Amino acid sequence: MEYRRVKDQSYDDLSQKDVESLSGRSLSSVNATGLSSAGGAKGKSNWKLKSVVTLALTLLTSSQAILIVWSKRAGKYEYSVTTANFSVEALKCLLSLAALFRTWNRHGVTDDNRLTTSFDEVSVYPIPAILYMVKNLLQYYIFAYVDAPAYQILKNLNIISTGVLYRIILKKKLSAIQWAAFILLCAGCTTAQLNPSSDHVLQTPIQGWMMAIVMALLSGFAGVYTEAIIKKRPSRNINVQNFWLYIFGVIFNLVAICVQDYDAVMNKGFFHGYSFITVLMILNHALSGIAVSMVMKYADNIVKVYSTSVAMLLTAVVSVFLFNFHLSLAFFLGSTVVSVSVYLHSVGKLQPQK
Amino acid sequence: MEYRRVKDQSYDDLSQKDVESLSGRSLSSVNATGLSSAGGAKGKSNWKLKSVVTLALTLLTSSQAILIVWSKRAGKYEYSVTTANFSVEALKCLLSLAALFRTWNRHGVTDDNRLTTSFDEVSVYPIPAILYMVKNLLQYYIFAYVDAPAYQILKNLNIISTGVLYRIILKKKLSAIQWAAFILLCAGCTTAQLNPSSDHVLQTPIQGWMMAIVMALLSGFAGVYTEAIIKKRPSRNINVQNFWLYIFGVIFNLVAICVQDYDAVMNKGFFHGYSFITVLMILNHALSGIAVSMVMKYADNIVKVYSTSVAMLLTAVVSVFLFNFHLSLAFFLGSTVVSVSVYLHSVGKLQPQK
Repeated sequence: MEYRRVKDQSYDDLSQKDVESLSGRSLSSVNATGLSSAGGAKGKSNWKLKSVVTLALTLLTSSQAILIVWSKRAGKYEYSVTTANFSVEALKCLLSLAALFRTWNRHGVTDDNRLTTSFDEVSVYPIPAILYMVKNLLQYYIFAYVDAPAYQILKNLNIISTGVLYRIILKKKLSAIQWAAFILLCAGCTTAQLNPSSDHVLQTPIQGWMMAIVMALLSGFAGVYTEAIIKKRPSRNINVQNFWLYIFGVIFNLVAICVQDYDAVMNKGFFHGYSFITVLMILNHALSGIAVSMVMKYADNIVKVYSTSVAMLLTAVVSVFLFNFHLSLAFFLGSTVVSVSVYLHSVGKLQPQK
Repeated sequence: MEYRRVKDQSYDDLSQKDVESLSGRSLSSVNATGLSSAGGAKGKSNWKLKSVVTLALTLLTSSQAILIVWSKRAGKYEYSVTTANFSVEALKCLLSLAALFRTWNRHGVTDDNRLTTSFDEVSVYPIPAILYMVKNLLQYYIFAYVDAPAYQILKNLNIISTGVLYRIILKKKLSAIQWAAFILLCAGCTTAQLNPSSDHVLQTPIQGWMMAIVMALLSGFAGVYTEAIIKKRPSRNINVQNFWLYIFGVIFNLVAICVQDYDAVMNKGFFHGYSFITVLMILNHALSGIAVSMVMKYADNIVKVYSTSVAMLLTAVVSVFLFNFHLSLAFFLGSTVVSVSVYLHSVGKLQPQK
């Protein structure tokens, strides 16, 4: 339960992995940051890359939720959340560096894959982490107005805020059918999560609604901002970009450990209470974070939202087999709506502007 | 409560009203029965007629449900359902005849508006009524397997069966987006009707599912068959077509009175137990039935399904003001999905084939 908070931390939307330098590659989607549409073999290889990272994100996100259920079943763990968060960030940094070393060995150091950077380039990198931090602070206060199940329902506002901010900030266009699909995605995800007590949400006081909307906007803004940072220089090696994103996560979490858990860590040790499942969850979160970065680089926030929504449904289906979960009628209806939404998003694509 | 059964009777989908002879008018939608697409002024007047009858059906259907709630609140009525059904059919016949007299007075008797008919033309008219009768018989048996709230949920299968039979029997095409919209309509309507006990439906035994599917097919087939009958001769006056549809309803209901309620009617009188609200409901059912026929003539079964679905949502919203009903979160989500479905149905129109 406690570990779930990790999911909302900054590194959730900042990441990368062992990928060769992609200098010269560009994005096939409609793009306002000055990238031209890549055709032929490049377009195909981009499409393949996009599919692989999206699939990876979907599978990692759904196994994440399953690990959370598993850890809950196995009983409460005594590890400190701040050290776990730090470990995730540190692991992501290490993986990025490992990928970079491999690239340097194979292709040598170039302008696009060198680790050194300008203040101008790196100065924007802490911003998403700060936005997530503010959102996580708000999270403590919103529970004065809404309970946990209602909060799960309200979190679906993220879908709408991401779509709106994606349109406004990145100036990317969705077709009318894709907008309809996006509204359906939000309605379908919420429907799938309905339970007999969900109607509580409608009694949420105005303060709760305001905070939920602000949190959705912060989360959406952080995601869209990360995409903007990563796509600003398309030829830049993703591992370098991720290193700089994650290093701020490492620093922020180090501060959090000192403030919150200094005594506990000093007395009991850094890894006190870690179990096999804790290690698995840290590994999963690190890989998920990297997958999110990759999706931001090679696809976009819209694909990310679809990917994590489908993952939510996958988790429920897998839980039926693993944990004897019962699927509700609402889940079937919500899944149907989400599936139709995915279909409409793909058939509703705008024709590339030439 | 008892009166609700009336809604499922044959006349639900067989009807007409005071409309001038429409000789020569044709339908603007893609149509396999040999009608050509009408352009210009005719197309526009068809579109207007289509909108008016669709709006009328929506308003009549939603007020129908409100009358049912009202009658429930006002206590149980002692009238016999069979005489009420008979009255509805008879009233529809009378209204059709009145409209016909007006047409004859204005335009004289023509081949298209004469009441006399050939055996070939009239022989198919009892078929929809028979299909509804079989469906209503099955309705008594299905309650051995499902309870009333579960049956309300299962009735949404009608939406899918109508779409499938519309495609197969009338050979009319829907675009891929319109099919997606139709699936959403079914999911959205079901979601809007969800309540904490809806999950019972998932425990429906296989016999219950089979019967629900057969009933949906019978109901869908009756609707599609009525459309085929009415559209077979587009120049034929709708009032004549309706007269022949309804006269079989009158006959069948007369038989039902004799079989079920002969003694009661003889002892207490035909209109025993009728109140102001009973009369209102009979009037409403008669007009709704006529509106359904008009939608079949000037639009199609798909429009009818959308119209009655939107009516269901309207009823709930109006009930909030009239009866202090509470709308559930599921209702809002379902309504959102239905609204998007209506939008997608209209933007997803196939281009007319030339």
